Amino acid sequence: MSTAAVALLTDFGYEDAYVGVMKAVMLAVDPALTFIDLTHNVPPQNLTSAGYLAAAAWPWLPAGTVLLAVVDPGVGSARRELILEEGGKALVAPDNGLVTLLADRFPGARMHRADAAYLELLASRKPAGSTTFDGRDLFSPIAAELARGNRTVIDPEVIEPVGIEDFVVAPLSGSRLRCPVLHVDHFGNCITGISLDLPAVRDFLAGGPLRSVLINPAAGRSGDRLPFRESFSAVEVGHPLAYWGSTGFLELALRNGSYAARSSLSAGSIIEAELNG
Amino acid sequence: MSTAAVALLTDFGYEDAYVGVMKAVMLAVDPALTFIDLTHNVPPQNLTSAGYLAAAAWPWLPAGTVLLAVVDPGVGSARRELILEEGGKALVAPDNGLVTLLADRFPGARMHRADAAYLELLASRKPAGSTTFDGRDLFSPIAAELARGNRTVIDPEVIEPVGIEDFVVAPLSGSRLRCPVLHVDHFGNCITGISLDLPAVRDFLAGGPLRSVLINPAAGRSGDRLPFRESFSAVEVGHPLAYWGSTGFLELALRNGSYAARSSLSAGSIIEAELNG
Amino acid sequence: MSTAAVALLTDFGYEDAYVGVMKAVMLAVDPALTFIDLTHNVPPQNLTSAGYLAAAAWPWLPAGTVLLAVVDPGVGSARRELILEEGGKALVAPDNGLVTLLADRFPGARMHRADAAYLELLASRKPAGSTTFDGRDLFSPIAAELARGNRTVIDPEVIEPVGIEDFVVAPLSGSRLRCPVLHVDHFGNCITGISLDLPAVRDFLAGGPLRSVLINPAAGRSGDRLPFRESFSAVEVGHPLAYWGSTGFLELALRNGSYAARSSLSAGSIIEAELNG
Repeated sequence: MSTAAVALLTDFGYEDAYVGVMKAVMLAVDPALTFIDLTHNVPPQNLTSAGYLAAAAWPWLPAGTVLLAVVDPGVGSARRELILEEGGKALVAPDNGLVTLLADRFPGARMHRADAAYLELLASRKPAGSTTFDGRDLFSPIAAELARGNRTVIDPEVIEPVGIEDFVVAPLSGSRLRCPVLHVDHFGNCITGISLDLPAVRDFLAGGPLRSVLINPAAGRSGDRLPFRESFSAVEVGHPLAYWGSTGFLELALRNGSYAARSSLSAGSIIEAELNG
Repeated sequence: MSTAAVALLTDFGYEDAYVGVMKAVMLAVDPALTFIDLTHNVPPQNLTSAGYLAAAAWPWLPAGTVLLAVVDPGVGSARRELILEEGGKALVAPDNGLVTLLADRFPGARMHRADAAYLELLASRKPAGSTTFDGRDLFSPIAAELARGNRTVIDPEVIEPVGIEDFVVAPLSGSRLRCPVLHVDHFGNCITGISLDLPAVRDFLAGGPLRSVLINPAAGRSGDRLPFRESFSAVEVGHPLAYWGSTGFLELALRNGSYAARSSLSAGSIIEAELNG
Repeated sequence: MSTAAVALLTDFGYEDAYVGVMKAVMLAVDPALTFIDLTHNVPPQNLTSAGYLAAAAWPWLPAGTVLLAVVDPGVGSARRELILEEGGKALVAPDNGLVTLLADRFPGARMHRADAAYLELLASRKPAGSTTFDGRDLFSPIAAELARGNRTVIDPEVIEPVGIEDFVVAPLSGSRLRCPVLHVDHFGNCITGISLDLPAVRDFLAGGPLRSVLINPAAGRSGDRLPFRESFSAVEVGHPLAYWGSTGFLELALRNGSYAARSSLSAGSIIEAELNG
């Protein structure tokens, strides 16, 4: 028995017993596991939001933690079970692009399939007719075995995971960037794909401080100019601001309000942002 | 101290401290308990949904687990405190019909009252005037004592629990069945009462494969014909399907959409379903 | 390693990884910690609701528990980090009035700042640019250190915390009271600030039993007369009642309905209540 933690990230919501049953399956493998629920309210099938949340939480997870991420629009079709290892931690997820941002930000990550013989064993244990809950039938046992230190469930061959374009930030002319909204948080803050780590952003900041961000400046779309501030308390209640969020990405917000509601942006929206525009 | 788990199932929602206080009460009994939240979003007072979720999660709970299910429209009135034992696990709940489906599917289950002297002790410890939170004052201590292996809180007499009609599937003429919607999940999938275990269903399948389900075929009601498929990926996005769900019941769904929203069905709705109709 | 518990109370919601990351930070300090989620659905920035929930849950938390309460409209501005100690338990929160009701109801509570040198160490570890997530960067490490018994993170000087007026119940003429709605629960029950402990209430009850409550009796506002009952089952479905709730405050409810929806009351609303009016 260990004191290892399994972190969970799904789009299963809070109305059902799905997540609880996954935990029950894992506790049957190791009754001493600790669980960290990241969220189960990923917008249904939204790999942008799931990929962002996995990457944002990753550096904070203690060594030994297994992150079990199940957002699985392709359940029942042929798609691989992915195990990513980095920094003494592991992620278990369907191989559908969910790890794209995480793999990009942590270049030391190594990706593997689950072991074929173990998958066959798990498939043989599925209840009759069950084809829609691989989170319970496949991913949870793999995660629990990894959390208790059993690495035989990993196929040693290193593979290239499926990649998706959801996280690409494209420099346009001048200081304009085309970028995704990665996630909308509980407060309606919009987390953009613009990070402090991007070469285009580093170059821009080398030339002087960021003072404002103009969202969607293109002709025919009404732009929105947000002052850049260090934190919410620097603007009046109800006023907008941009700031470097707690996960290192540029966020768009209204103090004590919802920028997502004001702008109709959601996870996966594509915007143009002009720095100091 | 044990590593036993207490699974929780309530309609208390996620806005209050009610569930947290129940856990605090249980940790005061045994600080090593592990909790598995099934859901706290059972529709208020909905015994159909609660009964389905308890029965669906039951086989997955590890031996030694106690399932504490508090959906209690009759709190403050005279109703018994029920303890069900089956397969090395226990369920604690108000005796209001919540266990009907579980008891039906697991015929080896034995039902008991809580011990009268222990209930008296718990009643004497209630805060002055407290009559509305038996989940905290009665059911949580019982569950925690059971989880740590103290069976003196059980009255040895076997009793017949209150039964409710919510789960009955009635064969009609031909291959028509009258059945309840047991639960609507986070994705809007409607779980019906039609299970692979029903004699009428087994007889039907012995005659050939299931190809479609016609919902509400009766005159004057607009029917909806759903093709039967193995899983979501076998139909186009936005199209309906019926399939055997991960808990062994027939589910009605839209791929990447909500069949509940399309059909206005909810937990407790009664439908007619014609197999291959 | 301990088996201490950290209870969490925030307005961070269930859509993000914020709460999970706070737990990850705490597990990095002590992997054996147990967590009790009170709620993360405090209405955004609502100190009335947060203050009520903290005070209501407090007496049920086992000795040794640390309550980490992060509702922090002033994050990024100058405001102190508060540690309250009472009855062998501790609370960690921003010093913004959240503890007003708790400190009032538990007069033995002693309040302190966090240790300045420890805060400086935590500030030095913040990711570059992070100014908006003190829950992760400051409060979580303090809570975890306290939970594992490290009291060096407390500044020994006793301080007076920031107080807010949100919880004041003012006797008016006769048996009228001006009081806040402290919280609206999942069922739409409105918890008022009127408690069994108030001298005005004790005096009133010494003169005879409570039979009804007239809400907002003042001229020009439509009053609502609620019979006082012991519990829900004493009125018909859909009918209103007032009762002493499970936390010792007077609650206003509709049986199987939402009094908050009927009355448009929310946490922080001010009402007038006439006992036996």
